[in-house]
Amino acid sequence: MKNTFGSAVSLTIFGESHGPAIGAVLDGLAAGLPVDETFIADRMDRRRARGDGLSTARTEADKVEFVSGVLDGRTTGTALTLLVRNTNTRSGDYAKTAALLRPGHADYTAFEKYEGFQDARGGGHFSGRITAASVAAGAVCERVLRDLGVRVYTHIARCAGIEDAPLSSAAGLVLSEPEPGRFALLDPEREAPMQAAIRAAGAEGDSVGGVLETIVTGVPAGVGEPWFDSVESTLAHLLFAVPAVKGIEFGAGFAMADWRGSFANDAFRMRDGRIVTATNHNGGVNGGIANGMPIVLRTVVKPTPSIYRAQQTVDYPARRDAELSIQGRHDPCIVPRAAVVQNTLTAFGILDLLSVRYGTLAQKHGLPRD
Amino acid sequence: MKNTFGSAVSLTIFGESHGPAIGAVLDGLAAGLPVDETFIADRMDRRRARGDGLSTARTEADKVEFVSGVLDGRTTGTALTLLVRNTNTRSGDYAKTAALLRPGHADYTAFEKYEGFQDARGGGHFSGRITAASVAAGAVCERVLRDLGVRVYTHIARCAGIEDAPLSSAAGLVLSEPEPGRFALLDPEREAPMQAAIRAAGAEGDSVGGVLETIVTGVPAGVGEPWFDSVESTLAHLLFAVPAVKGIEFGAGFAMADWRGSFANDAFRMRDGRIVTATNHNGGVNGGIANGMPIVLRTVVKPTPSIYRAQQTVDYPARRDAELSIQGRHDPCIVPRAAVVQNTLTAFGILDLLSVRYGTLAQKHGLPRD
Amino acid sequence: MKNTFGSAVSLTIFGESHGPAIGAVLDGLAAGLPVDETFIADRMDRRRARGDGLSTARTEADKVEFVSGVLDGRTTGTALTLLVRNTNTRSGDYAKTAALLRPGHADYTAFEKYEGFQDARGGGHFSGRITAASVAAGAVCERVLRDLGVRVYTHIARCAGIEDAPLSSAAGLVLSEPEPGRFALLDPEREAPMQAAIRAAGAEGDSVGGVLETIVTGVPAGVGEPWFDSVESTLAHLLFAVPAVKGIEFGAGFAMADWRGSFANDAFRMRDGRIVTATNHNGGVNGGIANGMPIVLRTVVKPTPSIYRAQQTVDYPARRDAELSIQGRHDPCIVPRAAVVQNTLTAFGILDLLSVRYGTLAQKHGLPRD
Amino acid sequence: MKNTFGSAVSLTIFGESHGPAIGAVLDGLAAGLPVDETFIADRMDRRRARGDGLSTARTEADKVEFVSGVLDGRTTGTALTLLVRNTNTRSGDYAKTAALLRPGHADYTAFEKYEGFQDARGGGHFSGRITAASVAAGAVCERVLRDLGVRVYTHIARCAGIEDAPLSSAAGLVLSEPEPGRFALLDPEREAPMQAAIRAAGAEGDSVGGVLETIVTGVPAGVGEPWFDSVESTLAHLLFAVPAVKGIEFGAGFAMADWRGSFANDAFRMRDGRIVTATNHNGGVNGGIANGMPIVLRTVVKPTPSIYRAQQTVDYPARRDAELSIQGRHDPCIVPRAAVVQNTLTAFGILDLLSVRYGTLAQKHGLPRD
Repeated sequence: MKNTFGSAVSLTIFGESHGPAIGAVLDGLAAGLPVDETFIADRMDRRRARGDGLSTARTEADKVEFVSGVLDGRTTGTALTLLVRNTNTRSGDYAKTAALLRPGHADYTAFEKYEGFQDARGGGHFSGRITAASVAAGAVCERVLRDLGVRVYTHIARCAGIEDAPLSSAAGLVLSEPEPGRFALLDPEREAPMQAAIRAAGAEGDSVGGVLETIVTGVPAGVGEPWFDSVESTLAHLLFAVPAVKGIEFGAGFAMADWRGSFANDAFRMRDGRIVTATNHNGGVNGGIANGMPIVLRTVVKPTPSIYRAQQTVDYPARRDAELSIQGRHDPCIVPRAAVVQNTLTAFGILDLLSVRYGTLAQKHGLPRD
Repeated sequence: MKNTFGSAVSLTIFGESHGPAIGAVLDGLAAGLPVDETFIADRMDRRRARGDGLSTARTEADKVEFVSGVLDGRTTGTALTLLVRNTNTRSGDYAKTAALLRPGHADYTAFEKYEGFQDARGGGHFSGRITAASVAAGAVCERVLRDLGVRVYTHIARCAGIEDAPLSSAAGLVLSEPEPGRFALLDPEREAPMQAAIRAAGAEGDSVGGVLETIVTGVPAGVGEPWFDSVESTLAHLLFAVPAVKGIEFGAGFAMADWRGSFANDAFRMRDGRIVTATNHNGGVNGGIANGMPIVLRTVVKPTPSIYRAQQTVDYPARRDAELSIQGRHDPCIVPRAAVVQNTLTAFGILDLLSVRYGTLAQKHGLPRD
Repeated sequence: MKNTFGSAVSLTIFGESHGPAIGAVLDGLAAGLPVDETFIADRMDRRRARGDGLSTARTEADKVEFVSGVLDGRTTGTALTLLVRNTNTRSGDYAKTAALLRPGHADYTAFEKYEGFQDARGGGHFSGRITAASVAAGAVCERVLRDLGVRVYTHIARCAGIEDAPLSSAAGLVLSEPEPGRFALLDPEREAPMQAAIRAAGAEGDSVGGVLETIVTGVPAGVGEPWFDSVESTLAHLLFAVPAVKGIEFGAGFAMADWRGSFANDAFRMRDGRIVTATNHNGGVNGGIANGMPIVLRTVVKPTPSIYRAQQTVDYPARRDAELSIQGRHDPCIVPRAAVVQNTLTAFGILDLLSVRYGTLAQKHGLPRD
Repeated sequence: MKNTFGSAVSLTIFGESHGPAIGAVLDGLAAGLPVDETFIADRMDRRRARGDGLSTARTEADKVEFVSGVLDGRTTGTALTLLVRNTNTRSGDYAKTAALLRPGHADYTAFEKYEGFQDARGGGHFSGRITAASVAAGAVCERVLRDLGVRVYTHIARCAGIEDAPLSSAAGLVLSEPEPGRFALLDPEREAPMQAAIRAAGAEGDSVGGVLETIVTGVPAGVGEPWFDSVESTLAHLLFAVPAVKGIEFGAGFAMADWRGSFANDAFRMRDGRIVTATNHNGGVNGGIANGMPIVLRTVVKPTPSIYRAQQTVDYPARRDAELSIQGRHDPCIVPRAAVVQNTLTAFGILDLLSVRYGTLAQKHGLPRD
């Protein structure tokens, strides 16, 4: 289903950038789970643009409005629907250049797919704006995971050519939540040079991309399936839904192309009476199934396609070559804002996988732990 | 659904390495499509082990037996079921070391998930053997795509540290099918050094991995969906089902992390009255939807986890550290054999995406072309 | 998926009776289809209570508000989301007797399923109120079907013990739409006695039920599937979602239990160069697949469980027998209002079945006709 | 998906009447569940034709062959695939009259849907033969339900105009399994007159139908969903997949059309510290969710369409009226054999619903009971 994904828990996403609202339906939740508005607001805040030269000048209140499935701060067990209003829209910016296909965007594919009936204002359904709805829904899931002892953490592994500190060890990871308003980094010292590099690109009317790394701890071994409902298939399916994501890898990922098996294999060891792996090159997943180690994945976020520099393109209705200078308000880099999108969508995916194995009721009553 | 994937066309995979047979159910095909046994046998042959020091000594006839959905060489339109018998099984090899978790394999996760009831012989449902069923089913789809003007081609982009020649140009790609029995390479001269590097690793009781690149041509612009049924989500979901795949990227993929938007964006241009892109860094997909350019993706295949060198591990029932020396018959590298697995699964995914847009009947009656 | 159904086109329903709004997401529509607000308002009007002694005194404006997927009166091709505000809510009516399980309602099952966290106000997600959202979404589909030459018509076959005139002939059916505000009857003369019988039951603090019959014309032979996506499975799945529906039959249905095959079989005949059946005892479906004759189904709608007469029940938290006198505003009969619910949900189901066979694009470009 | 149904547990059915085998894939089972071949053989035996004038002379061994997912008599937790070989096929019987559309059968719809490429031999995928695969798969589920304290029982409520004894009371039902080889009846005395009536119809070259009633006990209150995954929607979807089923009703079903609410409502009462209903007119389901009372449903099975009497029909390729005298081997009544089909498919549906709520693991570790 096009805008719906999930098995035991499902997520439906809808809305357009300049429509009245975007939103989501989250179905398959147990009743009585906390819908923690403070937590959700924190997640929304991390996605919000700040109009500070690092992100778009379009700033939105991003208040989450619950339409169904919530009563007195708790889930009712029926479909949870939420809306996020679009307020700060300036469709005029787009109208002027609507005939010119923006390179790297979905303008052309939308024309072909929707035969000219697409809502092109602000990118319509293709806008990164839509991710605000997934953040709100995923934040509900992330909050539920906390009570189940599962944590999801995403940091900017690389941005504008600058790397964060590496995850030092596979086991015993203690991750602290980044302060709101700061970049999600293992090493906060890297924020200043990253910001500088982003601003430099922005000053040249250009944009930059990066890599986001997500770590999930607390998932019991045995969750996920061989073949099509593998942890990797599920999370990859979800994260490729995020605009600008063009790749994903688990554990050591592409680096393993040049490794030998003797190095790539994660040796099993007993530690404190539990089975662990000495390394985590497989990113917590063997045969599609969680092995109890942290689940580690990285995505690449391409540089924002909206740039101010003039670009070669085509006038679609006129069917002729043209030059485009994009107006509107855009991010020179969406990587910092995308971190929380990845984090919350991953949380949704993990909650779904847990619910298949342990049942809907386990969302409320807890996972069996040794 | 665990072993089932697809929307308009669905694929269900079943079987264990040492069970009587593995197989697949392919549903949602139109009636009257060719089930070309010669073509399918060719695909099966490309996956077959040769017992030549490059792949496992377990060789199988891999004859595809149709149980339903085929009559007189044509699909009947109902669920197509096929079996591939397992004949050359030596379960004894595994029984000796069944208590010792093979690093990099799914032994541990299977124990946790299936509570000791898994079929552990030869890796059971986690074995690469199961991919033979997906090759057979995907070959049916690939053959159907040919009549629709869609071609899928996979080559070994990198293996054992040696690279194939790069795809030279995004448009106007003319790809020739590799000869059976040869590595799938753009530059056949690279086969000898690749083979040498694989054999060198095998001689040391070790294994190597690589990168597989797939190119799909002929998919009309407009196929695929924003959000969860994107071309990328669909193909990533499918390909992460393949054992040993730990990453996937589309177009320039992870390289774009360090690029600027002005370089990453693919400029649109008119060429011979058609809209194309001057480059193809987005791998033929914008906003999740095919843009008419070749769809290009790469996966990383980790080095085969089965190696002959002694490895540290855990005795699962005894819950103590142990050392494992794997017996059995194994591939020092599965990349060459995995190429056709990726090719045929991709073909299945593309046929599903086309069928959603154009309907089941279009599989038989053709796609609308300008 | 709990609140989502459909293959090529999917429908997600959400909302509670006394929440801010109810709504629906309709996904898988082609772009450029008419979203005809007049037509939709007509369908909403037919479901509306009139507060006239025949239906509940809770009357709602039932204005349909489009949140996504619609621009300038046409579908954009992305998920269409609509809301219907709840305005005339009087939750106090329910609070007084919340501990007492209403017989025939979902109070008890909601307590058990949702462990006390359900939204019990006005029946919450179980309220017939929620059907307003499905009417709005189904009306969009029904309108699309019209342009495809497919008509859906539902009449009250029986209510409060009074029968409508029978469908006289299987083929060549010409059905006229009932006037708004009137009962949907083949014979308008039956409305007066039906109204009288309903009022009589209401006057005694009681309620009545009935049978709704739906006829679909214009579906080409070949639509639907054997086994699980049969026309019957699909429509039954949808219609059992409607509160109070407790049975469904196709064609002659339960009457065939006592028939002989020689009478039940529909003889095929050539008529004007087309293949038709002389009778339509199978209700337009053979082997799960439409045969080109009108699709005919009937559902039974049980008498409204909310009645004013005192009833025996249980005090749930106190776990003791109790007596309940229901307050609030209720329909002595929901059959007349349910007719349009059945009609529009059937329209959705038929549009989905057509889209699987002919593709999403056919919704806009038309079905192939001989 | 056409031949696949289910959420947490899914069932895929394949095969044709005269193909090499029919079969099923049952996915989503926990590991370690009993696969009780004696129990399964008993279920297969109840579906088997006896060639005794009551059912077709085509008798099959109906040995169930497990291809995957079973080891040492237990599920392995991966997709369970089974085959039932077709041995006693006489395709020649059909070839003679292949151009003549059999009334009441799917010949015409298959021609239209599959454009002449269908496997028409013995009815192909539309044959009642295919239900043998669903019986085998459903028997696995029924056996699992037993260990969970859930029983499913189906009797012939009516056949050839003769009724079985009625279910006497809603609660405290003690149902005994019918002896193999006997009709499934509450009152065994009714078998002789039913047999006589069936034989009488058969002797006239005609056929008869009937009504099958299924009772499920032991399902905890709270299972099932409002809207699309209601107990009724799920079971109706499944049972309309069975050839010849043309109607389904729950509880009092169609009888409620003429009832008043005060009679139809099931009063709640405390009994032995548990909440029960005094009557069970709603068939154990309120608001789509099980209420802990026996789930009761009835289907109508139309008279077998294959009759020996001459029938009017059409020669499909010649497009002209014709007369058909069916050859081949047919049942004058399939109701007795269909009982176990309904029973086992219902068992599958119930196991799926339980697994959604309590998780896959609960299949093995038991349901929470008060």
